[in-house]
Amino acid sequence: MTDDAHNSQPDDSPELRQLYQGFADQSLIPLWTQLGDLMPEHPKPKAIPYVWRWADLLPLAEASGRLVPVGRGGERRAIGLANPGLAPHAYISPTLWCAIQYLGPRETAPEHRHAQNAFRFVVEGEGVWTVVDGDPVRMSRGDLLLTPGWRFHGHQNTLEAPMAWIDGLDIPFSQQMDVGFFEFGADEVSTRETPILSRSERLWAHPGLRPLSSLESSVSSPLAAFRWQHTDRALTEQLDLEKEGYPGTFDPGHAAIRFVNPSNGGDVMPTIRCEFHRLRAGGQTENRQEVGSTVFQVFNGRGVAIIDGVSHSLETGDLFTIPSWVPWSLQAETQFDLFRFSDAPIMERLGFMRQDVVKE
Amino acid sequence: MTDDAHNSQPDDSPELRQLYQGFADQSLIPLWTQLGDLMPEHPKPKAIPYVWRWADLLPLAEASGRLVPVGRGGERRAIGLANPGLAPHAYISPTLWCAIQYLGPRETAPEHRHAQNAFRFVVEGEGVWTVVDGDPVRMSRGDLLLTPGWRFHGHQNTLEAPMAWIDGLDIPFSQQMDVGFFEFGADEVSTRETPILSRSERLWAHPGLRPLSSLESSVSSPLAAFRWQHTDRALTEQLDLEKEGYPGTFDPGHAAIRFVNPSNGGDVMPTIRCEFHRLRAGGQTENRQEVGSTVFQVFNGRGVAIIDGVSHSLETGDLFTIPSWVPWSLQAETQFDLFRFSDAPIMERLGFMRQDVVKE
Amino acid sequence: MTDDAHNSQPDDSPELRQLYQGFADQSLIPLWTQLGDLMPEHPKPKAIPYVWRWADLLPLAEASGRLVPVGRGGERRAIGLANPGLAPHAYISPTLWCAIQYLGPRETAPEHRHAQNAFRFVVEGEGVWTVVDGDPVRMSRGDLLLTPGWRFHGHQNTLEAPMAWIDGLDIPFSQQMDVGFFEFGADEVSTRETPILSRSERLWAHPGLRPLSSLESSVSSPLAAFRWQHTDRALTEQLDLEKEGYPGTFDPGHAAIRFVNPSNGGDVMPTIRCEFHRLRAGGQTENRQEVGSTVFQVFNGRGVAIIDGVSHSLETGDLFTIPSWVPWSLQAETQFDLFRFSDAPIMERLGFMRQDVVKE
Amino acid sequence: MTDDAHNSQPDDSPELRQLYQGFADQSLIPLWTQLGDLMPEHPKPKAIPYVWRWADLLPLAEASGRLVPVGRGGERRAIGLANPGLAPHAYISPTLWCAIQYLGPRETAPEHRHAQNAFRFVVEGEGVWTVVDGDPVRMSRGDLLLTPGWRFHGHQNTLEAPMAWIDGLDIPFSQQMDVGFFEFGADEVSTRETPILSRSERLWAHPGLRPLSSLESSVSSPLAAFRWQHTDRALTEQLDLEKEGYPGTFDPGHAAIRFVNPSNGGDVMPTIRCEFHRLRAGGQTENRQEVGSTVFQVFNGRGVAIIDGVSHSLETGDLFTIPSWVPWSLQAETQFDLFRFSDAPIMERLGFMRQDVVKE
Repeated sequence: MTDDAHNSQPDDSPELRQLYQGFADQSLIPLWTQLGDLMPEHPKPKAIPYVWRWADLLPLAEASGRLVPVGRGGERRAIGLANPGLAPHAYISPTLWCAIQYLGPRETAPEHRHAQNAFRFVVEGEGVWTVVDGDPVRMSRGDLLLTPGWRFHGHQNTLEAPMAWIDGLDIPFSQQMDVGFFEFGADEVSTRETPILSRSERLWAHPGLRPLSSLESSVSSPLAAFRWQHTDRALTEQLDLEKEGYPGTFDPGHAAIRFVNPSNGGDVMPTIRCEFHRLRAGGQTENRQEVGSTVFQVFNGRGVAIIDGVSHSLETGDLFTIPSWVPWSLQAETQFDLFRFSDAPIMERLGFMRQDVVKE
Repeated sequence: MTDDAHNSQPDDSPELRQLYQGFADQSLIPLWTQLGDLMPEHPKPKAIPYVWRWADLLPLAEASGRLVPVGRGGERRAIGLANPGLAPHAYISPTLWCAIQYLGPRETAPEHRHAQNAFRFVVEGEGVWTVVDGDPVRMSRGDLLLTPGWRFHGHQNTLEAPMAWIDGLDIPFSQQMDVGFFEFGADEVSTRETPILSRSERLWAHPGLRPLSSLESSVSSPLAAFRWQHTDRALTEQLDLEKEGYPGTFDPGHAAIRFVNPSNGGDVMPTIRCEFHRLRAGGQTENRQEVGSTVFQVFNGRGVAIIDGVSHSLETGDLFTIPSWVPWSLQAETQFDLFRFSDAPIMERLGFMRQDVVKE
Repeated sequence: MTDDAHNSQPDDSPELRQLYQGFADQSLIPLWTQLGDLMPEHPKPKAIPYVWRWADLLPLAEASGRLVPVGRGGERRAIGLANPGLAPHAYISPTLWCAIQYLGPRETAPEHRHAQNAFRFVVEGEGVWTVVDGDPVRMSRGDLLLTPGWRFHGHQNTLEAPMAWIDGLDIPFSQQMDVGFFEFGADEVSTRETPILSRSERLWAHPGLRPLSSLESSVSSPLAAFRWQHTDRALTEQLDLEKEGYPGTFDPGHAAIRFVNPSNGGDVMPTIRCEFHRLRAGGQTENRQEVGSTVFQVFNGRGVAIIDGVSHSLETGDLFTIPSWVPWSLQAETQFDLFRFSDAPIMERLGFMRQDVVKE
Repeated sequence: MTDDAHNSQPDDSPELRQLYQGFADQSLIPLWTQLGDLMPEHPKPKAIPYVWRWADLLPLAEASGRLVPVGRGGERRAIGLANPGLAPHAYISPTLWCAIQYLGPRETAPEHRHAQNAFRFVVEGEGVWTVVDGDPVRMSRGDLLLTPGWRFHGHQNTLEAPMAWIDGLDIPFSQQMDVGFFEFGADEVSTRETPILSRSERLWAHPGLRPLSSLESSVSSPLAAFRWQHTDRALTEQLDLEKEGYPGTFDPGHAAIRFVNPSNGGDVMPTIRCEFHRLRAGGQTENRQEVGSTVFQVFNGRGVAIIDGVSHSLETGDLFTIPSWVPWSLQAETQFDLFRFSDAPIMERLGFMRQDVVKE
């Protein structure tokens, strides 16, 4: 709706003022004074497109490692990426929370559980195991690790070197919609085992196979870890197939996979979609806009994100967010690998998804 | 999480202040300073339980009818029930918007459409037709009328008497999640026909039958009107069956129906659940708490709502809202009829629903 | 596959005969001797199109009423329509069983239950109640009554006049696929009540409403009776809408409804689809072919069925079956009302459905 | 139903004979003369439990290789396992067809497609590629290869040695239900490429990942090959987890996986379920009965199948079938590996599945 259309207000008068006072007395607010804000012509997010540089984040995480203990109460040494448009909240978007988490040498983050869905994605480092409902899950570069709602989880660093990674959760959605529950667990992780593969992978990470002991569709993925070697290979194969003349890539020169719940082929968690994208050097995506908000982290390579017409040069570790309905495209200088997560399952499950290719 | 648990913060120091300044400079906010707020032990809504009296609402709506024109721009003479805990927003809950809408004699509200899902429920009056994508839908006492997302709709009052009703929409959800689209339609309603039954009812309001021309499951109900005669009869039958010794009621003395999408038996719209409840005189419900927010309007009779331990006497037309996880029960002095709507489909589709019976 | 293509067999020789004897000794049959039969170019049903005349059926049913008792053991005085192509089986098609059932004055058919799904459709008469799991369901002209698998059921005739109706079951499917279970119940019906409406209708026959006490999707319809008044009205409205210029009919001049499970909008039972079709006088359908078999009964009016190019004149009560992939169309001399049932849910759920409009 | 219960027939008389003649004249068959056969107390399959020995099958297949050409018309050198209870049909069960197929050195089986769903399972050998809609799929020991309905497929043997494997199809179901379509394709396979991995695996065989270019749920699995290395590892992990004290096996000492459609986690094809079972040496399963028919092939090891109380000693390659509702259990002398397929998806999708553990 244009601003003009919303400027037609009733003429001021003592009676109108009395009416408005009556509204205020009775906890009422008329629609006609705020329609344009309540019902815009298209999504007008308060969140803004924004880029965080890994080169800025990591030193601050390291400083936190020195100054801030991790333990019961604070629970996690996690530093949230706060979208400036959503101040004073630590929200990267209206639905998503994203943080860099840092665990010093030999440190442990105690166990707890919450209704919020969470994942971790590792852009560098190794040595940490996250223990999810008693199952120790190794965290290594390129891996996606899930902690769906209401699973106890804690982390331990088994090495003398610190490790940092990113966390993604649906905290803003949960907080605004009043759906959160939280419970403390053990002060230490419940197992110190450090297997290469979690039990969830030993049961579920076999392509096209499921254990006969677990035949129901589950709300969230029973597979807790998605390993870089599989992701990398899937993307490589798509680009190879394209070179050989077969379908497989998402767009020309643009390979992409979605991480899915192997019990039903749907999203890994009911509120968060996770994907991985790879562009050939020199490639670029179409200029798209979608309902819902998204976050990318560069995993490898160099390129440019053009968001709402503004170009941002990107390097490994850089994170950026794109609010709802803001047009964006990617350009690759080198082979360009990006991890992506979004709130698309919320939009799709509630019937609000729209997407469009924007012509210049 | 207890407050104490959240009081363990790092010791103040110049280095810590420098770190926090670094966070601020880089649009970062640490988790450990706000965990209790971000991840409470259970939902801690800002919204509060609140009751609006029909005896207060209606005169203000009538005064608006005199002072505020309805037409292009303002679009609707709708007065939103604003939860005091959510000020300055006109939200009755974090997801739901609820208003009393008022149309004067012979007035017309112009057509528009929006991604937001809407319904109207009529507690008194008659004479208005809402035109939904060209289908004129009569609005009479006790009827539930749907305007699912992105359908053009306008209203016309065909009588010399004014009419008021309540509107329910998912505006707060849409606004916070950035999913709204809006488009103006015709300045007048696109048809002046005033049939007893809408075309949607002529196709879909036959129990257990669907037209062979429309076999897909649709996101929202293709049936646009749910008539009081059917609702009343369904509730009467449940109580009669109970008297005869058969199952049918929801709780003893408590009949209840859900309004559903006849194409799939699910909720009428993807974000809003609509129900009707009837208690026998003297009856009462269990004390329940549920994730998600809800609104009731008394349609008939007298009774009491006990919300979070506080009793509220209620009469016809009174509206009240119950935020997420707040315990509530109802007691009936007379036969007690209540219309209810809620955001339960959001909670269920996203895996957040929990419900519990609270023992005193 | 053409016959020629299948005539290429290995040259006869003593070694080949010895090989074939070896096959026989080891319970083996080679594919190459019978491929054309096993895997035809398109469905080549043994069942044939066939018409049974009500004028022939009813007198035989009446004679049975005099000569054949109904009671424990025989269970039902039901006379199956046996497709001549499927002799010696009493199958109307490879999946469906259809019979005329006859109950004399004041007679009772004892209770039993079976895994097979059943319905009754009433082309004339009244006075019988079928008792389904203790719920007495009135049977009157034009009504469709369900007995989904494993529900106890018996019938009683409350009048001094006999009554006949048709039964439809998935007996041939069950028998060939080895899925049948059967259990005797009470020798008399478990209730002699004769209410106008069954309890299933009192709970479920309210358009767009479902009881809050029953929110799950059920395998078969919880609504046991679909009344003629609703069916007739739904068809009338579709033709009226067409006259007014609105969508609603299935084809021009051809109104049609599907009977559905109100808990999910799908077919009333997992193996049997039920529909009702009405053609305007002078109207005709397209010439269609579909995978799966179907049965029609003329309910009212006169017309012609053209099946595989052969015309059959039809009157009230006449029944006809169309095997898989056989082209058919209907022509109406008067307004022409037909009840239809088929095995389409089997075909759709197992991915075998195909349908086509056949141009002459 | 007991036989006695069904012996109560009307008394013979001239009138009854006339009535029965009338039935015959009008293509009618009364229910009361055949109820026990049509509606048994529980499934009474004509199919019988039966064992085929690999030691018998393979020489006959080899003899066929010498005497019977493979080519257009006969299409395949496949020898069907014909259940003696279902003579004269080449059905292993009422729904399933199972054959040993044999391809001589350098031979090719021409391309065709059919509505019937098919798979191949390889108990020994290598060197054949099956080409499915142009995608060459290697066939090696332990692999399961799919050819869902209506995909063109042919086979070529690239080696100087012959190869044999088993085929499983839903031919009996398709033939009896009249759902089959067939079309000839190229006389030669459409590609002579012999890659280690098919294109379907390169796109889909990555655990928990799906290509973004293919997001819909498909009727049958888009993954055409399930490799032995994955199956073996999944079974090994289950038994290891059991040893470590964690859940994972289906029964104690009994590991099992289901082959699934990675687009939705359901069965690989709409009519056929495929599984792999492994028992520890000395282990045994419970004695179960299920609705529907099944076929096992021993892949490795020695053991015993006890079917309806009769013990059958089994070795590698042996095949056996268990009809509907017949109790069975397995005992392992050595580690005992078995491939299994069944019609369970038919039973489940149509609401007929029942299963029970039978106590001795």
